[in-house]
Amino acid sequence: MTAPPAEMGEWKRHVADKLERRKASIPKEWLIPAIPDNQTDVSAVPYTCGLLTEKEIEITDVPDVSILLQKLASGVWSAVEVTTAFSKRAIIAQQAVNCLTEIFIDKALERAAELDAFLKEHGTVMGPLHGLPISLKDQICIKGLETTMGYAAWIGKVAEDDAVLVKLLVKAGAVLFVRTNVPQTLMWGETANNVFGRTHHPLHRRFTPGGSSGGEGALIAMHGSVLGVGSDIGGSIRIPASFCGLYGFKPSSNRLPSYGIVNSLDGQESVPSSLGPLSISLSGVSTLVRTIIEAEPWRYCPNTVPKPWSQDEFELKGLGGGKKLCFGIMWDEGSMKPVPPIQRALEMTKKALESAGHTVIDWQSLRHAEYVTVARSAFLNDGNDDFNASIITGEPLIQSMNPDEDPSYVAPWRVPRPKATAYEIWQLNKERRALRKALLDRWEATSAQTGTGRPIDALISPAGPYTAVPHGHVRSSVYTIIWNTMDYPSLVFPVTKVDPALDAKPIREDFWSEDDKFVYDTYDAEKFNGLPACLQVVGPNLHEEQVLGIGAVVEAALKGI
Amino acid sequence: MTAPPAEMGEWKRHVADKLERRKASIPKEWLIPAIPDNQTDVSAVPYTCGLLTEKEIEITDVPDVSILLQKLASGVWSAVEVTTAFSKRAIIAQQAVNCLTEIFIDKALERAAELDAFLKEHGTVMGPLHGLPISLKDQICIKGLETTMGYAAWIGKVAEDDAVLVKLLVKAGAVLFVRTNVPQTLMWGETANNVFGRTHHPLHRRFTPGGSSGGEGALIAMHGSVLGVGSDIGGSIRIPASFCGLYGFKPSSNRLPSYGIVNSLDGQESVPSSLGPLSISLSGVSTLVRTIIEAEPWRYCPNTVPKPWSQDEFELKGLGGGKKLCFGIMWDEGSMKPVPPIQRALEMTKKALESAGHTVIDWQSLRHAEYVTVARSAFLNDGNDDFNASIITGEPLIQSMNPDEDPSYVAPWRVPRPKATAYEIWQLNKERRALRKALLDRWEATSAQTGTGRPIDALISPAGPYTAVPHGHVRSSVYTIIWNTMDYPSLVFPVTKVDPALDAKPIREDFWSEDDKFVYDTYDAEKFNGLPACLQVVGPNLHEEQVLGIGAVVEAALKGI
Repeated sequence: MTAPPAEMGEWKRHVADKLERRKASIPKEWLIPAIPDNQTDVSAVPYTCGLLTEKEIEITDVPDVSILLQKLASGVWSAVEVTTAFSKRAIIAQQAVNCLTEIFIDKALERAAELDAFLKEHGTVMGPLHGLPISLKDQICIKGLETTMGYAAWIGKVAEDDAVLVKLLVKAGAVLFVRTNVPQTLMWGETANNVFGRTHHPLHRRFTPGGSSGGEGALIAMHGSVLGVGSDIGGSIRIPASFCGLYGFKPSSNRLPSYGIVNSLDGQESVPSSLGPLSISLSGVSTLVRTIIEAEPWRYCPNTVPKPWSQDEFELKGLGGGKKLCFGIMWDEGSMKPVPPIQRALEMTKKALESAGHTVIDWQSLRHAEYVTVARSAFLNDGNDDFNASIITGEPLIQSMNPDEDPSYVAPWRVPRPKATAYEIWQLNKERRALRKALLDRWEATSAQTGTGRPIDALISPAGPYTAVPHGHVRSSVYTIIWNTMDYPSLVFPVTKVDPALDAKPIREDFWSEDDKFVYDTYDAEKFNGLPACLQVVGPNLHEEQVLGIGAVVEAALKGI
Repeated sequence: MTAPPAEMGEWKRHVADKLERRKASIPKEWLIPAIPDNQTDVSAVPYTCGLLTEKEIEITDVPDVSILLQKLASGVWSAVEVTTAFSKRAIIAQQAVNCLTEIFIDKALERAAELDAFLKEHGTVMGPLHGLPISLKDQICIKGLETTMGYAAWIGKVAEDDAVLVKLLVKAGAVLFVRTNVPQTLMWGETANNVFGRTHHPLHRRFTPGGSSGGEGALIAMHGSVLGVGSDIGGSIRIPASFCGLYGFKPSSNRLPSYGIVNSLDGQESVPSSLGPLSISLSGVSTLVRTIIEAEPWRYCPNTVPKPWSQDEFELKGLGGGKKLCFGIMWDEGSMKPVPPIQRALEMTKKALESAGHTVIDWQSLRHAEYVTVARSAFLNDGNDDFNASIITGEPLIQSMNPDEDPSYVAPWRVPRPKATAYEIWQLNKERRALRKALLDRWEATSAQTGTGRPIDALISPAGPYTAVPHGHVRSSVYTIIWNTMDYPSLVFPVTKVDPALDAKPIREDFWSEDDKFVYDTYDAEKFNGLPACLQVVGPNLHEEQVLGIGAVVEAALKGI
C-alpha cells in the first residue's frame, strides 16, 4: 500500500485554502443571508432571497432548453443576460445545497459578451448551443482551472488543456461557468468528499441528490443550470437525475468524447464510464448529444466511436415513425422491490403508452446480481491501488456516505480485494461477454412476442428501488449498473412525485434481501412527500438516437399529447 | 505455473490420432503422388498432378471472386461443381504445403447440393455468397467439429455451436469446407504447431507463408480457396497476405463478429484481435465485409459495433468520389529498412497514384517502437498464464519458429514477464490512449498539407520490411502492429514481384538495428525471385468502407485503369 504521508494534516490546510479561493470566486454582492440549518426545503430560496430580478427569474425558470436556445438565437435574451441570471442562481444554489467546486463567472461573462458581439456582427449564432450556460462535473478539465475531483491531493492540479468535450462545447457556442461536486473516488451514489464536503437535495437537505454527478443533480434541480454534463459508471448520471426529477442520459461508453477528462479507476475498460448530460428537459439532453456527435468528436478523441448522428434513427424511421412501438417493462429486478411511488410511476407509464397506441410486454429480470458482480470486480480489481494513488497527502478514504456511520465501517461492496492479475481480468472480460450475449439474445428473442416483427424497441425499468433518500441511505446500484455492464444507453425521465394519498406503505413481512428490507423500512410517504419519481428507458448498445427518440414518445404519452 | 503433466507423452498419441483422422477425411482418390522434398516451388502442382479436370482448373483459376459469384448466381457453374473443384484443389494444396486442419468436404457437398436445389426452385440465390466455398482459420468454431487452434490439449474439443460469423456466412449462402493451420499460441508471424506441423509457402517450401493466418495464406495462394477468414492481432492477416501476394484486410477490432470463436489471450482487450478476410481479389475482401455487416452482426454478437455498412463511404462520396485523393506514404518506420522490392513497390504505387491524378505526401514514421511496446505488454501481461492453461497435456511451448534453432532459445519479445496487476494494466491502457491521441492528431494535422481541405485520405506503408522469408526469419511485426495498437483498418494489396534485375541488393554498411542488419543480410534477390511484394493501405478507426473503397482506387491506379 501507499507509504505513510510525510506531512499528515497538511492536506487540511490545502482544503482550507481551496475553500477560501472558492468563496473568493463568488461576487460579494451575490452572497445571501445564511439559510437556517433546520430549513430542509430550499427549493424556493431563489425566489425568496431577493437576489434575482424578475427577468432573471423568468430566464432561469425557463421550462425547456429549446426555448432558451431560441430566445438566445433570436437575441430576445442576450448571452450576457442569460449567463448573469444562471450564474446568480447557481451561486444561490451553492449557498443552499453546496453543489459547486469551481466558479468562473468572470470568464463566462467575457465569453457571453463575445457571443453577443458575434450575433450582432454576423446576424447568426456561433453554433447550436449559442449562449447556453452549461455546467460540468468536476472531472471535465478546462485549461487553466484546477480539477480536484474531490481529492485533497489534486488541489492545485491545473489543466494544461481543455478536454475534447470542452473544446466542442465552446465551438458550439456554449458558455461554461461552473463545475460541480462529486463524491471522493466517484464510486458512490451520493455526493461528499473531504475537500468540498457534502451536497444536499434541494427539496430536503437531509436527503442526498444522489451521485456521483450529484453536484449537477442538485444544481440543475435548483435551475442554477438547465444543462450539465456528468459521468456514469454504475448509475452516476441516472441516480442524481432520478433523485432530482431530471432527464439524465448515460450513452454507450464511447459515444461522447472522454479524452482529456480526469477519472477514477482511469484506464479500467472492462466496464467503462460514459459522459452524458443531465437537464431540466429532454430537449437539453438530445441537443447536447446531437451537437457533440455532429461535431465529429472521433477526429479529436481516440476513444470515440465514429458513428455519425442518425437523424433517421432519432425520428424512429426504422420503427414505423414511433407510432406503434413495443416496450418491455421490468417491474423489479428481484432483490429490492421498488417503493410505492416507483411502482406507481411504472403503472402510469404503461397505461400512458398503451393509451397512445403502443404495446407493453413484461420483461423478466435477468440475473442482475451477476451483472453487478462483474462490474464490481472490474472496479475492485486493483486492490485500491487507484484510490491510494489519489489520497497520498493523507486524507482518509471515505468508507461510508452515512454521516452518522462508525468510521471503521466499510460498505460490503467497498471492501478492498486482492489485486487481480492480467489473466484474471481476461477471465472476467469473458464472463462479461457471456452476460452481454445472454441479455442480447433475450432482447432479440422478444421478437416472438412484440407483434411488430422487431424485438422490443426499448425497455422501461426503475432507475432504482427508491426516490431520493436520506444521506447515507443509498444501496447497491443494481437497477442501473446492469446497463453499464451491458454498455447500453439509458435515459432517466421524470414521471410523478411522491403523494402520501397514493403511495402509502403497504404491509410486507417477507423480504427478498437485507437491502430490500432496508428500503422498505426507511420509506415514509409523509417524509418523502413531493420527491420526484423517475424511471429509465433503455435501448441497445450505441443506439443513442433510438433511445432519445423513444424518450420523446414516452414523454408525449405521459403528457397525453 | 502449471503442475507437471500426469501423463507426459500422452499428447503425442492424441496428435497421432488427430493426424490419422485428418488423413481419413481426405477422399482416397484425391491423394496425389508424394512431392519430392527438394521440390521447393509447388505452385504448379495443381496443373501437373492430373487430379483436376480442365473445367475444375478453369473454375479454380478464376481471377476474381466477383466473377465466381456471378457464375454461381447465374447457374453457369453449379455450387456442387465449384465446391468439388475447390475441395480437390484444397486437398492438393494440403499435400503440397500442409495448410489444412479440419477437412469436411462431405458436409460441404451436401450444402452445395442444397444451394443448387434452392437456386433451381426459387430462381434466385440464397444470399450474396451463394455457393462460394469459404475457408476459415482454425479458430472459427463450427458446430460438431473440433477446434484445435494448434494445441494438443484442444484435440477433441468439439464446438457446441457455430460462431456468429459462421451463422452469418451460411445464411449468406456460403459453403464452408476446410479450416486452416495456425502457429501454436497464434502469436507468431509464421505457422507451425505441435499438432499439424508447419505450413509452407507455395512458391518456396523452405519459406514461410507468414502467420498466424498462414494456413489461409498458403491455401489461397494455391487457389485451394479464393476467400477465407483469418484474424490479426499484430499482423496475422496482413503478414500472410503480403507474403503470399493476396489481398488481406484487418478491420477495426469490433467491426466483424467474434462471438463464438476461440482465441489466444482470450479476454485481453487492451490491444484486441480482429477477424478479417484474405482473398485472391479485392472483390472477395469487400464482398465478405459488406455481406457480414449488412447482416447486422451486432444483433448476435455483443462485441460488434452497430455501425451499418455505408455504401456512400465505400464509394468515397465524402472524398470527392475518390477522383483526387491525397495519400500519405511512409517509406520506412526507422528500425528496419524495407528490402529493394518493397521500396520499389512503394515507388510504383506513388507514381501510379500521381499519374491517376492523386497527391502523395510523405508521412514521417511516428514512434513505432512505443506502439509495439504497448501491444507487447498487453500480450505478455499474464506471465504466460494463458499459454500455460492451453498446454496442460505436456506439449512443449514453441519458443522459436526457426526449425534449426537451439530449443533453449526464446525470442526476446517472447520472454515471459511478471504477471501484471489490474492497476498496471490500467496504466498501460492510459499509455495506449496517449499514443492513439498522438497519431490521431498527427493524422488530422496533415490537413494543412493535403490541399484537399481534408487530412490524408489513407496512408500507404510497407506491411513489413521484407517479402516472404525462409522459415524462422520473420522478425518483429513493427510495420503491422502499430495499426492494432491504433485499431485502424488496414488492407494489404499486391503490387509487384521480386525481380533480380530490378531489386539487386545495394551496399549498406550502417544499420538501424540488429533486425535491420538481419533483414539486409538474408535478402537475396536471386533466391527470392518471383516472390510477391505487397503494401498496406490504412485508414481511420472503424472506416472500413473508406479503406476498401480507396483500395479499389489504388488497384485501378496500379493497373493504369
